[in-house]
Amino acid sequence: MERIGILTSGGDCAGMNAALRSAVRTARKKGVEVYGFKHGFVGILEKDFISLDSRHVSGILQRGGTVLQSARCEEFKTNKGQEKGFSNLKELGVGGMIVIGGDGSLNGAFVLHQMGMPTVGIPATIDNDIYGTDMSIGVDTALNTITHAIDTIRDTASSHDRAFIIEVMGRHSGYLALTAAIASGAEAAVIPEVPYDLGAIADNLLQRYEAGKTNSIIIVAEGGSDAYTIERKLKHRIGYETRITVLGHLQRGGEPSVFDRLLASEFGMRAVEALLEGRSGEMVALQSNEYLAIPFEEVFAHKKVIPQRLLELAETLSS
Amino acid sequence: MERIGILTSGGDCAGMNAALRSAVRTARKKGVEVYGFKHGFVGILEKDFISLDSRHVSGILQRGGTVLQSARCEEFKTNKGQEKGFSNLKELGVGGMIVIGGDGSLNGAFVLHQMGMPTVGIPATIDNDIYGTDMSIGVDTALNTITHAIDTIRDTASSHDRAFIIEVMGRHSGYLALTAAIASGAEAAVIPEVPYDLGAIADNLLQRYEAGKTNSIIIVAEGGSDAYTIERKLKHRIGYETRITVLGHLQRGGEPSVFDRLLASEFGMRAVEALLEGRSGEMVALQSNEYLAIPFEEVFAHKKVIPQRLLELAETLSS
Amino acid sequence: MERIGILTSGGDCAGMNAALRSAVRTARKKGVEVYGFKHGFVGILEKDFISLDSRHVSGILQRGGTVLQSARCEEFKTNKGQEKGFSNLKELGVGGMIVIGGDGSLNGAFVLHQMGMPTVGIPATIDNDIYGTDMSIGVDTALNTITHAIDTIRDTASSHDRAFIIEVMGRHSGYLALTAAIASGAEAAVIPEVPYDLGAIADNLLQRYEAGKTNSIIIVAEGGSDAYTIERKLKHRIGYETRITVLGHLQRGGEPSVFDRLLASEFGMRAVEALLEGRSGEMVALQSNEYLAIPFEEVFAHKKVIPQRLLELAETLSS
Amino acid sequence: MERIGILTSGGDCAGMNAALRSAVRTARKKGVEVYGFKHGFVGILEKDFISLDSRHVSGILQRGGTVLQSARCEEFKTNKGQEKGFSNLKELGVGGMIVIGGDGSLNGAFVLHQMGMPTVGIPATIDNDIYGTDMSIGVDTALNTITHAIDTIRDTASSHDRAFIIEVMGRHSGYLALTAAIASGAEAAVIPEVPYDLGAIADNLLQRYEAGKTNSIIIVAEGGSDAYTIERKLKHRIGYETRITVLGHLQRGGEPSVFDRLLASEFGMRAVEALLEGRSGEMVALQSNEYLAIPFEEVFAHKKVIPQRLLELAETLSS
Repeated sequence: MERIGILTSGGDCAGMNAALRSAVRTARKKGVEVYGFKHGFVGILEKDFISLDSRHVSGILQRGGTVLQSARCEEFKTNKGQEKGFSNLKELGVGGMIVIGGDGSLNGAFVLHQMGMPTVGIPATIDNDIYGTDMSIGVDTALNTITHAIDTIRDTASSHDRAFIIEVMGRHSGYLALTAAIASGAEAAVIPEVPYDLGAIADNLLQRYEAGKTNSIIIVAEGGSDAYTIERKLKHRIGYETRITVLGHLQRGGEPSVFDRLLASEFGMRAVEALLEGRSGEMVALQSNEYLAIPFEEVFAHKKVIPQRLLELAETLSS
Repeated sequence: MERIGILTSGGDCAGMNAALRSAVRTARKKGVEVYGFKHGFVGILEKDFISLDSRHVSGILQRGGTVLQSARCEEFKTNKGQEKGFSNLKELGVGGMIVIGGDGSLNGAFVLHQMGMPTVGIPATIDNDIYGTDMSIGVDTALNTITHAIDTIRDTASSHDRAFIIEVMGRHSGYLALTAAIASGAEAAVIPEVPYDLGAIADNLLQRYEAGKTNSIIIVAEGGSDAYTIERKLKHRIGYETRITVLGHLQRGGEPSVFDRLLASEFGMRAVEALLEGRSGEMVALQSNEYLAIPFEEVFAHKKVIPQRLLELAETLSS
Repeated sequence: MERIGILTSGGDCAGMNAALRSAVRTARKKGVEVYGFKHGFVGILEKDFISLDSRHVSGILQRGGTVLQSARCEEFKTNKGQEKGFSNLKELGVGGMIVIGGDGSLNGAFVLHQMGMPTVGIPATIDNDIYGTDMSIGVDTALNTITHAIDTIRDTASSHDRAFIIEVMGRHSGYLALTAAIASGAEAAVIPEVPYDLGAIADNLLQRYEAGKTNSIIIVAEGGSDAYTIERKLKHRIGYETRITVLGHLQRGGEPSVFDRLLASEFGMRAVEALLEGRSGEMVALQSNEYLAIPFEEVFAHKKVIPQRLLELAETLSS
Repeated sequence: MERIGILTSGGDCAGMNAALRSAVRTARKKGVEVYGFKHGFVGILEKDFISLDSRHVSGILQRGGTVLQSARCEEFKTNKGQEKGFSNLKELGVGGMIVIGGDGSLNGAFVLHQMGMPTVGIPATIDNDIYGTDMSIGVDTALNTITHAIDTIRDTASSHDRAFIIEVMGRHSGYLALTAAIASGAEAAVIPEVPYDLGAIADNLLQRYEAGKTNSIIIVAEGGSDAYTIERKLKHRIGYETRITVLGHLQRGGEPSVFDRLLASEFGMRAVEALLEGRSGEMVALQSNEYLAIPFEEVFAHKKVIPQRLLELAETLSS
């Protein structure tokens, strides 16, 4: 393989640049050229790319976001767009593709693979909702950002005897919400995977209030409910004021944590190695502290579930 | 004076604890006892206080929020409540009061002074809207928190060709918004003090877009407009997507910056010294890098304005 | 078991408080009393302890260091001291012990177990040199602190065309140094596990210099060499200035990362559960993303080694 | 003036990039070309520069260090070197120069002015030892970095009953040390401006120890003494262990604080405006919250002193 392509797609997250840097350096060391496509699949359709060498990716390891930029691409969801993309890659002499992104992006990668373009995916999404890998790039950084924000809000909560309802990302997964709740010592978490009982939450807050703990933090995953609904239902049942914070896009960016830099570096190196070994249609993954690659079919066939032990831990510690 | 009282009132901010620590240590060194009233003026009305010595305030210098806690107090806005408060203080042998807080809290301090209780105020509010002092406690920390958040969101904005509209605190003052806009390199700021022209902002963003700068940040002070209104009016005039983030209570807390620790320490020391010199009805202040105390009447008679040079700087640098 | 004891021993690290909090809350929920011994094993010998309930450990989750404090204890290394300790615990009605710390501390735990006191250990040391667990409490936070410090020093290195030699902790293990080198994009790492070839390092730096990269970072584990020796040998072989930074105790403290809060919370909960299940002489551990407990004999019989893949990753990415 | 030059010289500090960005944008808006000389005065001697427009300085506001890089330049200290530099500037059509740096750099700026090249200086040094300006660029960021590091070390100090001796920068000025001591609640500061009495410090630590405060932090400015000397003299007089940390180059870099971004932005704008108004031989400065420009002769004729009130504050609060 003389030339590979790489792109970042979907919502950005911390560590995408580290994965890009690692893939480029690994490929260059093996004498392989790397085309970096801009704006995700749009870059393939518009032949918008740059040839990347080791110096291009110098100084990006510690930067959030993605220097290749990202975008949604409706055109690549159509047969016509996919054929155009495949034909562009052939024309450019690209012999293999690496796609960095979440669920939707990996679907695009799967399409390329099915059309005959050797393609490997790298899971990157702060939601940690991709089956087959214990962690995706960006999760650890997002968790630290969220937890630091909650620590900060706790200052205000404890100064005022208030309940704070904090909404975090996670449309289909409560991983961020539940983990951040444990890490920040929040009093409750509302997540999509577990039916919530506002009566029980309110009772618990009331009990705590009577025992002298007059402030509390409730974390809500956007897929579990929304902060405004929770507040409306909760505020009349507890004896103190409530406030809402929606963390929003603050959760995506920022300097990647060490874990994300390492994970992304490993994923980038292994994705290139997989392509050069002639593999395709796979996603690199971390399972039980081992790096491996698993078929896209397996990734798409299952839904990732929240570890039971996190639920127990949350239950035990929020007392 | 053998005994003074101290309280924190209104919205909490970083540095309140540093001011408390400084006041307690200064007073104790001079042999004066200090009663710390809990929950602002509520603590006076309910005689809820603790006698503070130097060890009580150990380890709080670097903590956000206020260990004395804060609360609104409707009762103290009535004549009856004020008389009860005054009488409670007399009964407890309190010979002078220090009130740490924003506009409303300083009004309460003024009332105590007028009733004959020697009282000195310490300006503490992230909005920096108190006349007579260049800076209030909490402003510098809030600015750093806001600016760091915008830096983080910029990662995402630049990864996606998006305009981000970020709403920050400031009901009557655009100081936070304008300063954070300069410090983060934002493309525009909407503040209460200056009529905004969305057409001009949109034109500017469009020009920049055509020149290749396809992402932007617009900071909105909550008193200037709100992020949702700005987005609704802006999104059809510019060529790219918009997103909203409301920073909310994240802005209040967190570890105080060095500037806030110093300012709060000076204010705390000077407030005690002023009381012991027999002064009352004044607020400690920082003017042109000098510490002084100014009468409450002067504080309440004027409205603080945004320095003209900040407006010029914002104009010059956003190009 | 009606009453258990807990202590932190050896060098402090971020997450010790989180483990303490989790153990206390888990035990209290099961109706078990918890004595927290102060200053490590000294607290047992001097019967210096407090009975901890859930409220005592409120607000410590996010704090570095250890509220139980830690100390070395020469007396507990003698037979006489150990007998006194055992007898004190019996006298106090302590039916089980949890020891949080590094190698030396776990040895003390093993002694208690051998004397007949049910004892479970929790691995906590920033060096990550304890066999049997993939990660110890404190490692992730230390890595993030170190890497952030290197990022900061890189600003200066790249402003001045300088080589910076940065010494980090790790007397017997290069884990911190190697991992931080990968995470910060350092050009070289000197660690105890791998013989280093300064000639090769210098040649590499020279080559890079000639290719235009005129600054570099070399990370040294204190057990691998020391920064001053490396500098003396290196400075005459490369074409540019060198500077040294010894990170020192900065590496221990600070707000624990999310990973450390979770790891510590799991370890604390599982250590209590193990004791209540009648187990003893074991250390809780994380292996391949599973939590388990392994006998102290196994922990002490092996030496932890650096994963080979980290060495490869460092080699590939430093180009 | 059609073209100006700009350079950064001496030790780097946070905010240099912000000053550069502001100067470039201000000049470009007025139609003036800007040559950025690389590596300080070396860039003038070697005609190593780039023509900077607004886009070149995009995205550098929040970055530490200096993208123009800095270096010492022995040649420019000789008459011959100065004549060559002046002649190079003339040849390149440079009609005015802006020099960003500390004492030595401003001396170089003064030389250019005396030779007839209109030159304005911008004070940038973390030591805050430049007479005539209340604050130099980089001071506020360095103080926050130092204070955060001390907060972190305090975790360890309080976990172990230890005295930590922390050496910070400041060859001729104790400003950093004294201010960081106040901001971190350190127990003592050793600075060049005030003769220190180790006996008194030891007595104070002993008293505190006996009163139950068994850990302490002593900050040493490198110009006041050095951490090893202080430790040697102190360790036998107090009842507990001592440890040393030398913060080193960690103090220079990092993301600039909001204050430094604003100060640097103002200085950059005003330096350009001063040149365009035909002024020369001056340094822009902040005095009593007002921006102005003062002659180099005045800057060099005085020595900056530590404000007396900082000494009093340190004395009062360390109790």
